[in-house]
Amino acid sequence: MTFPIDHVGVVVRDIDAALPFYLELLGFAIVGREKLPAIHVELAYLTTEGKGTMIQLVRPSPPSPLWEHLQLHGEGLHHVCFAVPELGDAVRRLAPGATVSVNRGGRGRRACFLPETHGGGLRIELTEPEPSFGEAP
Amino acid sequence: MTFPIDHVGVVVRDIDAALPFYLELLGFAIVGREKLPAIHVELAYLTTEGKGTMIQLVRPSPPSPLWEHLQLHGEGLHHVCFAVPELGDAVRRLAPGATVSVNRGGRGRRACFLPETHGGGLRIELTEPEPSFGEAP
Repeated sequence: MTFPIDHVGVVVRDIDAALPFYLELLGFAIVGREKLPAIHVELAYLTTEGKGTMIQLVRPSPPSPLWEHLQLHGEGLHHVCFAVPELGDAVRRLAPGATVSVNRGGRGRRACFLPETHGGGLRIELTEPEPSFGEAP
Repeated sequence: MTFPIDHVGVVVRDIDAALPFYLELLGFAIVGREKLPAIHVELAYLTTEGKGTMIQLVRPSPPSPLWEHLQLHGEGLHHVCFAVPELGDAVRRLAPGATVSVNRGGRGRRACFLPETHGGGLRIELTEPEPSFGEAP
């Protein structure tokens, strides 16, 4: 079983202010933008290829834990998100016994963060590969 | 002109200790390992697909700047490396006027880090796409 990289998450203070660097200098294109008030983030997904690993810009608001991270550490790399077939199985594999909070993340997909103690030094998000519009957990 | 993601760099204290998480739990495979004493790092490149974005594990030693980062911040995400056709042109585009140090990085490729003031909040490495065995700069 392999869990490929879905995206790399970068926290920013202002998505519109961050975009020109990615679009005009690095040549990325916007795959999508969305606001997720339920989890207090605004997102933009960027790619150079239309598929493969994306950069996700995240503008968090309080009380998102990412907002606290932004206040403490400033803008920058935050997490790596791996695509997994099913969150429950993946959490049991990667972080057995851990309790995670499953949310409706970007692109309508169920997603969760692993406890940092189970990330091998990384902040790790997991996301299922397809949108799922039922109840979040 | 587009600069796709080549790899995501993760600093670790011990590559052998870090590998089982990536290989056994996330299903990554080792593309290559190498020691670069000239720039004081040991590297392992990992992928789930044989191509596309890789994870690069970096075990730095002093006086590498990455060793100082590891001491200050611990293990974790360090940089995003973009593949560029030619370093000089890319640096002039992304960080006009900046002075960078070009090294022989992983896989025999010329590589450099941008000054952090020019990374849009990221620590950014640039690498050329093909091995080049001439003089580093």
